[in-house]
Amino acid sequence: MTLIATPRSLSFDAPLALQSGASIRQYSLAYETYGTLNADRSNAVLICHALNASHHVAGVYAGQEKSEGWWDSMIGPGKPVDTNRFFVIGVNNLGSCFGSTGPMHVNPDTGRIYGADFPVVTVEDWVNAQARLLDALGIQQLAAVMGGSLGGMQALSWTLQYPQRVRHAVVVASAPNLNAENIAFNEVARRAIVTDPDFHGGHFYEHGVVPKRGLRIARMIGHITYLSDDVMNEKFGRQLRNGLLQYTTQDIEFQIESYLRYQGDKFSEYFDANTYLLITRALDYFDPAIRFDGDLARALAPATARFLLVSFSTDWRFSPKRSREIVKALLDNDRDVSYAEIDAPHGHDAFLLEDARYLAVVRSYFERIAAEFAGAAAVRELPAGALL
Amino acid sequence: MTLIATPRSLSFDAPLALQSGASIRQYSLAYETYGTLNADRSNAVLICHALNASHHVAGVYAGQEKSEGWWDSMIGPGKPVDTNRFFVIGVNNLGSCFGSTGPMHVNPDTGRIYGADFPVVTVEDWVNAQARLLDALGIQQLAAVMGGSLGGMQALSWTLQYPQRVRHAVVVASAPNLNAENIAFNEVARRAIVTDPDFHGGHFYEHGVVPKRGLRIARMIGHITYLSDDVMNEKFGRQLRNGLLQYTTQDIEFQIESYLRYQGDKFSEYFDANTYLLITRALDYFDPAIRFDGDLARALAPATARFLLVSFSTDWRFSPKRSREIVKALLDNDRDVSYAEIDAPHGHDAFLLEDARYLAVVRSYFERIAAEFAGAAAVRELPAGALL
Repeated sequence: MTLIATPRSLSFDAPLALQSGASIRQYSLAYETYGTLNADRSNAVLICHALNASHHVAGVYAGQEKSEGWWDSMIGPGKPVDTNRFFVIGVNNLGSCFGSTGPMHVNPDTGRIYGADFPVVTVEDWVNAQARLLDALGIQQLAAVMGGSLGGMQALSWTLQYPQRVRHAVVVASAPNLNAENIAFNEVARRAIVTDPDFHGGHFYEHGVVPKRGLRIARMIGHITYLSDDVMNEKFGRQLRNGLLQYTTQDIEFQIESYLRYQGDKFSEYFDANTYLLITRALDYFDPAIRFDGDLARALAPATARFLLVSFSTDWRFSPKRSREIVKALLDNDRDVSYAEIDAPHGHDAFLLEDARYLAVVRSYFERIAAEFAGAAAVRELPAGALL
Repeated sequence: MTLIATPRSLSFDAPLALQSGASIRQYSLAYETYGTLNADRSNAVLICHALNASHHVAGVYAGQEKSEGWWDSMIGPGKPVDTNRFFVIGVNNLGSCFGSTGPMHVNPDTGRIYGADFPVVTVEDWVNAQARLLDALGIQQLAAVMGGSLGGMQALSWTLQYPQRVRHAVVVASAPNLNAENIAFNEVARRAIVTDPDFHGGHFYEHGVVPKRGLRIARMIGHITYLSDDVMNEKFGRQLRNGLLQYTTQDIEFQIESYLRYQGDKFSEYFDANTYLLITRALDYFDPAIRFDGDLARALAPATARFLLVSFSTDWRFSPKRSREIVKALLDNDRDVSYAEIDAPHGHDAFLLEDARYLAVVRSYFERIAAEFAGAAAVRELPAGALL
């Protein structure tokens, strides 16, 4: 059965105070839901997205066969996060470019397009905005919050900002903060965008241009770091595009060059440059331990949720070591933690791919969650039945 | 004792045929020499440079205290490559931007600056040009050829192109070819340069501009890959530049950003954009096994030199695994190979740094070489003495 997705949008008029001290006066969030909220509203699962994804998590849009959501292998009827049992919510984050209020929208305070003036948003700000969406949907407590990479940071932050509203957190291919190398890659990508003459200080919309050169470079760097060395060698190795060397410095010689240019071109057609800056900055800033002198165990003490963490052996951007830091900090707090380190060849990208062991781990964890609320429902039904 | 270096230049009028099929009609090579060539011309050591280095390998220029050569820790009087015993030659490669003929020079065929029309040069072409320099210096056989990274590729190639002219090859932090990830990083750097509007298709000299934006990005990417994750965390970690977050996407927040921008700026002031393209392409192209269906053992069969290979544990750009491939291929040919894998924290950069174990390994290897020609000289002297 194909899941048909319907994008929705909700507007919020109460200003949202941001971590930076600024606030957003008025904004809307694009979201989608799949499955049915049960009577006691206990089966909701919130999915948080990473850099270039959106609220379109699962299913396809009516009449658009190839419009699968970005985590369609994970979420849907009969899938590991089974929409026959769970009410799944995908939401596009503030500052993104897929429907929620972002830099390409008009700032109600000035009547001008935000551009580079869109306020800096953090993981914590996103979680606060997501919490308001849940309020509007009438959901007090999530069965689970789940995300990979930057999405995993949001899931983790949920357990700290709203511990009572999260029963489970599924944190995939993530980290308690970025290390220097990750910040460095983000910074190079940002510099490529900001120094593109078509960026115009972030106000390129008014000039009718897009800093595509910068976006291409940013995406090429991203792609290198999402893949493992091994999978890149296996997929491309030193294969030539034309069989014979052309001896050229500017044209394509190797297949890997062709692949990267293609990915860069595609990305520059649809992704917003200011959004790229905002989202990589949110990644850089996330660091719950910063207020505790780097003591992650103390930082995670407020979390009462139960956790599943997953990492991938060849992920050098968000390595297993970083997931283990989270696991250890949670165990130091005597929390209930499951952890799977999947031996997958695909690097960071693995969290988006179909790996049988990975999907099986998540499936079995969500079966445990489903059993809990099925049990709770059974408990609630029992007294009623006993009255008969 | 401070070694005073004197840059020299030699012009060559016989055309040099290049691997691409093109040729260079007329060119000059910048070089320096240190120490004294012995009577039987058996103590010459050629040093090959990597991406952004030059013929200025050791010592300082008269009156310029801070002008140390790029491998001054390795080469000089009493140093591991001891210029009291060896006659050391540093040479700037064709296409580079430090004195040898390159893209910023006038093409004698057209009277115009070469720019992007400078012919593509390969490691093999460089070795051929270096061989002519040795001819001119009257050196038939090298005691050793030595280089790190791309310089190591040249040293390896010497043993294949001119097996009779090399007694020893010292190949540091190198590889038998670049893998897909390395080509990918080179390609992103090249695209950043080529798509900079100030590149003007490689003919920016005529426009009085320099594609600095592209050069900065290229260098920032380079710096990330030259360092290890660990050393970057230790040196910069998540340190903020101003102590407090500023919440900005375009200004500097983290020290690592400041470091990378500084390195990028500095590089863009002195390095030639076309040279960057040429040299990264030479890296991409090097692959002696390509003509042997990827069989490196067969490719290295012509080498008769004795080898020292050195790699560094945290070098992820030219990892120990790649050096071991060379070692294995040489051993498959029953060659005389020494190999040291140095447990150093600094990543690829380690080959340029002062690490006591690394310097000791090279020192002891060169003592062995010196003993050989000292022995040879003794043997030659004996019969003469016997006549008395």
